[in-house]
Amino acid sequence: MRDLSADHRLLSLNTATVRKQGDLAAIIEACARAGIPAISPWRDQVAAIGLDEAVKRVKDTGLRLSGYCRGGMFPADPARLSEVMDDNRRAVDEAAALDAPCLVLVVGGLPHFSRPGSAPSRDIGAARAMVEDGIAALMEHARAAGMPLAIEPLHPMYAAERACVNTLRQSLDICDRVDPTRTGMLGVAVDVYHVWWDPELAAQIARAGRDRLLAFHVCDWLTPTKDMLNDRGMMGDGVIDLKAIRAMVEAQGFAGFCEVEIFSDHWWSKPIDEVLATCITRHRSVV
Amino acid sequence: MRDLSADHRLLSLNTATVRKQGDLAAIIEACARAGIPAISPWRDQVAAIGLDEAVKRVKDTGLRLSGYCRGGMFPADPARLSEVMDDNRRAVDEAAALDAPCLVLVVGGLPHFSRPGSAPSRDIGAARAMVEDGIAALMEHARAAGMPLAIEPLHPMYAAERACVNTLRQSLDICDRVDPTRTGMLGVAVDVYHVWWDPELAAQIARAGRDRLLAFHVCDWLTPTKDMLNDRGMMGDGVIDLKAIRAMVEAQGFAGFCEVEIFSDHWWSKPIDEVLATCITRHRSVV
Repeated sequence: MRDLSADHRLLSLNTATVRKQGDLAAIIEACARAGIPAISPWRDQVAAIGLDEAVKRVKDTGLRLSGYCRGGMFPADPARLSEVMDDNRRAVDEAAALDAPCLVLVVGGLPHFSRPGSAPSRDIGAARAMVEDGIAALMEHARAAGMPLAIEPLHPMYAAERACVNTLRQSLDICDRVDPTRTGMLGVAVDVYHVWWDPELAAQIARAGRDRLLAFHVCDWLTPTKDMLNDRGMMGDGVIDLKAIRAMVEAQGFAGFCEVEIFSDHWWSKPIDEVLATCITRHRSVV
Repeated sequence: MRDLSADHRLLSLNTATVRKQGDLAAIIEACARAGIPAISPWRDQVAAIGLDEAVKRVKDTGLRLSGYCRGGMFPADPARLSEVMDDNRRAVDEAAALDAPCLVLVVGGLPHFSRPGSAPSRDIGAARAMVEDGIAALMEHARAAGMPLAIEPLHPMYAAERACVNTLRQSLDICDRVDPTRTGMLGVAVDVYHVWWDPELAAQIARAGRDRLLAFHVCDWLTPTKDMLNDRGMMGDGVIDLKAIRAMVEAQGFAGFCEVEIFSDHWWSKPIDEVLATCITRHRSVV
């Protein structure tokens, strides 16, 4: 297991963590000030300053990426599938332009939440089939672009609205079917917030293995959790045994960044430099 | 699959659904007025009017029980294990006095939430071991009392505070280890709210089989869910495919009640007769 206590060379900032404090340019500047070596930006933040400008600022600052957020939202009315695939191919291209190591997929829930305007449905099995079909269809473009796809299983409390892929087992079953030869172009993003509760966590991380562990995200689960979306905790403030989970992914050979991704009204209300300083302290002490 | 459309002979009311509108005596009277044939009462409601009085009123009204809520909360400091087991044995005895078909187990989360005052812990694996040890220890008393124990897997969003058993697979793994000969004294309570999202739902219900399907609870999952505890939906108001899940349990031969259990600030604010009338309408139309 790697020693994080001496510095923060392995810390990456998911830029949603400070999305209310400034635009991507301001976030990149703040990371440079704090000596944070990597980020994982969101598409809306990149679009707001323009892809070319984002690429330039990332390069000029010498930042690396730990991922790009996000592709997905596959379930939709059949008439909208070309729109869905165009959108996802653009996400792959943007990730490639930014030199991201993977495109994170938040796969979408029921069609009317995944792509608003689609016909309402309670058929989560059908939504899951659309997700798998979508990932399989996107693989060709991802391969051509050399951009691995990282399925992020989301906590089951998001199954209806955000992602109907909710466990590592389910994610890896999709990987096995869509990429049976383990080409390295399809894997998972392990976010402790979504998977910490899973009784199969250790077994499924071992099953994933190094070639399918494409990203590792940290934050914490607060008790009580006051808001299902925007009350994630800073590492160390909740109940997740972060070092135990990091040990599991590193035992498989995971050598990437520990990406801090915190959606939190509390942390969005703090000055950006204070948030980043806290991330660094906690990265060195409790991650 | 049973036809529920003609009447509500298979409807049971979990009494927490109207716990703010009156005491257990008032709830029993309201069920009698509405022709609801069964209830599943909570221990605190029984204690409030006294066990003997509860038994008398249930018998005098001719009500049946679909379960008794609840035993569990096993994780605790070692020094408190005898307190935990005494508490659970009393729950078994009360369930027997009320002639319940099973005691529902909400197994508890991390020790300091399960039994407040216990030492704080992030070790969910240790909590799970305490749960299994507790169930195994309780089996002797349950067998002597002829009272089956129904493990209720709770939604993963409750893993820290309420139950660290979060899937049917995990529940049935415990059943297989603790009661390998399938004596009928250990099984599961399937609550759609907790399990609807599970990609393994159909497979695990089939694995459970009739002898381990001890209870079936219905409500609905609202989108958005505004409160993690008290914003469950009335059947039909959310995204759960209720008939599909009922078909799964009935395909295994489940012949018990469909128990309505709704924790909801919204429904707690309505007159009791209006809530019961709505439960009956929805039971006949969407369950």
